[in-house]
Amino acid sequence: MTDSTPLSVAGVAALRAQGTPVPLGVAPSTSSDMFKSAHCYTKPKAKRWDHILSLEAKSRKVSTLKGAAKYLKNPGLISLGGGLPSPEYFPIEQISAKFPTPPGFSPEETRESGTVMTASKGDAKNGNSLYDLEVALNYGQATGAPQLLRFVTEHTEIIHNPPYADWQCCLNAGSTYGWDTALRLLTERGDYILMEEYTFSSAAETALPLGVNLAPLKMDEQGLLPESMDEVLSNWDEAARGARKPYVLYTIATGQNPTGATQSGERRKAIYKVAQKHDVYIVEDEPYYFLQMQPYTGADGPTPPPPASHDEFIKSLIPSYLSMDVDGRVLRLESFSKVVTPGSRVGWAVGCEQIIERFQRNCEVSSQHPSGIAQIVLFKLLDEHWGHAGYLDWLINMRMQYTNRRNMLVGACEKSLPTEVAHWVAPAAGMFHWIEVDWKKHPGLASGKTRDAIEEDIFQAAIQNGVLVSRGSWFTADKTTPEEKMFFRATFAAASADQIEEAIKRFGDALRVQFGLS
Amino acid sequence: MTDSTPLSVAGVAALRAQGTPVPLGVAPSTSSDMFKSAHCYTKPKAKRWDHILSLEAKSRKVSTLKGAAKYLKNPGLISLGGGLPSPEYFPIEQISAKFPTPPGFSPEETRESGTVMTASKGDAKNGNSLYDLEVALNYGQATGAPQLLRFVTEHTEIIHNPPYADWQCCLNAGSTYGWDTALRLLTERGDYILMEEYTFSSAAETALPLGVNLAPLKMDEQGLLPESMDEVLSNWDEAARGARKPYVLYTIATGQNPTGATQSGERRKAIYKVAQKHDVYIVEDEPYYFLQMQPYTGADGPTPPPPASHDEFIKSLIPSYLSMDVDGRVLRLESFSKVVTPGSRVGWAVGCEQIIERFQRNCEVSSQHPSGIAQIVLFKLLDEHWGHAGYLDWLINMRMQYTNRRNMLVGACEKSLPTEVAHWVAPAAGMFHWIEVDWKKHPGLASGKTRDAIEEDIFQAAIQNGVLVSRGSWFTADKTTPEEKMFFRATFAAASADQIEEAIKRFGDALRVQFGLS
Repeated sequence: MTDSTPLSVAGVAALRAQGTPVPLGVAPSTSSDMFKSAHCYTKPKAKRWDHILSLEAKSRKVSTLKGAAKYLKNPGLISLGGGLPSPEYFPIEQISAKFPTPPGFSPEETRESGTVMTASKGDAKNGNSLYDLEVALNYGQATGAPQLLRFVTEHTEIIHNPPYADWQCCLNAGSTYGWDTALRLLTERGDYILMEEYTFSSAAETALPLGVNLAPLKMDEQGLLPESMDEVLSNWDEAARGARKPYVLYTIATGQNPTGATQSGERRKAIYKVAQKHDVYIVEDEPYYFLQMQPYTGADGPTPPPPASHDEFIKSLIPSYLSMDVDGRVLRLESFSKVVTPGSRVGWAVGCEQIIERFQRNCEVSSQHPSGIAQIVLFKLLDEHWGHAGYLDWLINMRMQYTNRRNMLVGACEKSLPTEVAHWVAPAAGMFHWIEVDWKKHPGLASGKTRDAIEEDIFQAAIQNGVLVSRGSWFTADKTTPEEKMFFRATFAAASADQIEEAIKRFGDALRVQFGLS
Repeated sequence: MTDSTPLSVAGVAALRAQGTPVPLGVAPSTSSDMFKSAHCYTKPKAKRWDHILSLEAKSRKVSTLKGAAKYLKNPGLISLGGGLPSPEYFPIEQISAKFPTPPGFSPEETRESGTVMTASKGDAKNGNSLYDLEVALNYGQATGAPQLLRFVTEHTEIIHNPPYADWQCCLNAGSTYGWDTALRLLTERGDYILMEEYTFSSAAETALPLGVNLAPLKMDEQGLLPESMDEVLSNWDEAARGARKPYVLYTIATGQNPTGATQSGERRKAIYKVAQKHDVYIVEDEPYYFLQMQPYTGADGPTPPPPASHDEFIKSLIPSYLSMDVDGRVLRLESFSKVVTPGSRVGWAVGCEQIIERFQRNCEVSSQHPSGIAQIVLFKLLDEHWGHAGYLDWLINMRMQYTNRRNMLVGACEKSLPTEVAHWVAPAAGMFHWIEVDWKKHPGLASGKTRDAIEEDIFQAAIQNGVLVSRGSWFTADKTTPEEKMFFRATFAAASADQIEEAIKRFGDALRVQFGLS
């Protein structure tokens, strides 16, 4: 492999053969640098971000005790230093898990012909595995286990190939934790951050108690509008706001929660340009990135065939902010929650070395690292069993599964919702369908009902009719400005096909009664 | 069981039979109240702590989306509300683990005759288990899985039986995370907290970047001195300090890190009294609580036999702050790290309802909950396989194992360290041995070497001689006042018997050369 070749699935074996061996011991100090291809280092380095680090982030020092670890390399040294328990006192001798054998991805096929992978104490010593159960059960470093860090680093390079040299990954206890950490690294009490006008309510609720305010940005069916971002930033009045100009954007670029909107590649470029213009740092929260679906071809339209190859699949994905991040101004929060399992509480962050180093310092004195039990199960699945090829096969399978679910829900809407008052665009990614309801046609308006009372009436009527949908107002970043429009969010992630059809029928009936439609 | 009976191991079955059934579904809302015995409610309620909650803690609201969960109880309701993925898309069909079968606790016995416990998708529906793998792999509540919460609640009641009614447990991502969360709940930038003069350096390093300062308290061989705490608080000069009087104490009461000191029951009572006098809230960080050892009877003395029963074992434990906490002014951080596995990153906090509710609100937008994969493995081990009786057997086994290790290390010190300059007290709990070195006898002093330079010389001489011990100065809470004494910390947790003996010999040789002893 030459320096100029970006990493592909096919290139992983050669890269691993040439690269630094995975350290097998307890809590080794590692970074993505051990696992990136030479191609990465042909690129320029990221900009520096000293000017946006919080006082808290700037104050963090390298752990005193971790600093002593450097002596452990001395041959023959006996350590009575660190308080690591002896593995003989971990009462778990072995962990096994049963995984799907590609292409048999369904639970039925897995029960029939799944593969059982086993991790035991002593596996590394015995040459059975690079990741020893003894190591997984002990303390680790904040970057996560090198065995899993290698996989996510390679995956990140294969999918995103960031256009600067010094990017790093840090495994973490899930993207919710990652966002909380990012806020602590990048903001001070009183600051404003930029967010989509409808956003994931938990993301807003993480920021607000820290004294961080939200500056909402307008959206269209492709999500965040670069013009709105430029306008807010260009006209920021520090005196009137009592706060410096925002320098952090939080965005869910793909299958946005709650709107289901997906920013096109062009849209992202335009937003990145505005971020450069105003020197804004971007946090892209991307749990739904691999829930990009096949094009919607109507309720009865044929579903286009799945991507024919891994390359075609990767090319079909909308480029991430990370992939266009020439400045190193993007922190990408990656998640296994929507495509593997949320219960693992394992995610990872990707960003420039400076920010990831501070991120890691924060993890050291907080979560420490994601659960080793979860890490070794994911390693067994993703690295030892599937490998990158199998994981991409799984992600293509997920694409088709979610395409099918989306089609069922949108088809049910076409069949059962009153189009006199309900409008929608079929989502291109994610798990959410965003239904606009024309509240100005509601008969209650004439008798003096407010918009909010009408939303509550419709929500309660749906509950009465046996269906729970989420109210759009739950997701507004700005709770002070009255909403012009009215939305309801329905997810196609969880319910069965029959249930989805029935649920939408119930919602449609509730709307008809509410709006006095026949 | 009548209201006046405190919970015992033998009473758990009856309590479970009478109590609320464990909810089997995804992410149910639960609390310890579902699992506590009626005896708890015969006690008065905790005091209120509004006056010590941070602005951040006070600002936290209940999650908007979690608020909608109440509608899910409606029979027949179909939810298109929450974004929970469908379990058919979790590519883990089954997880098994091999655990020791009591009393065969060693790795060898476990390999031979261990018990394999298996969690599968559909276990709850099929009546195989209360904790379904589907549930563990999905999102959960911040309190943790009710299945494991029940176990730790019962365990807490059996061991500590808190003397107030409204105590609660909240599972969390480990005690390091728990302490970080406590700081965010209880302190503001500029505050001082009380800490032992030698303390776990990571605990200090968690506080400092938050702008929280440390007020060190004097210690003796029983750890923290109540007189020092009273003196610091009574003489606190807000103007001179530029900070309000401290109202949070962080203490490691048992097998303290780094000193190995254990506060006696009397000592704890005296400290609790000072806390009441000055209205101080106590965070007791207790990872070593169950590493209380048999009395030290000299290098060749006979080890007293293990406790003959669970009752005798429980009675042998020094009462925790939680067990004497009539006010509800204690947050106890509980850990599996030293007695089961640190890699699980699962711990729990115990405190009064008001504080635990705020704790939980913080977790919701940060770690969310400990890894479900780790939780279900711990549940299989602790609840389904061992039960409380088996877990106590394990803890008694750990007590004997650590007693043996402590005896080896202290015996090696007696054999190999020059008592002209090295002094110690055999630790009664934990994993650390604290060795005082009489630096004033060091020949370097005459040639103008500073105390710190002498410490560095001894440390480096030990490294050169092939042994790593920790420097006492790494653990000082106050880095500005010069240390009067000099200590080195050696752990008996990790190395083998042979290695411990050899390592202490090397340290002794290094001391002899350093001090010019024959």
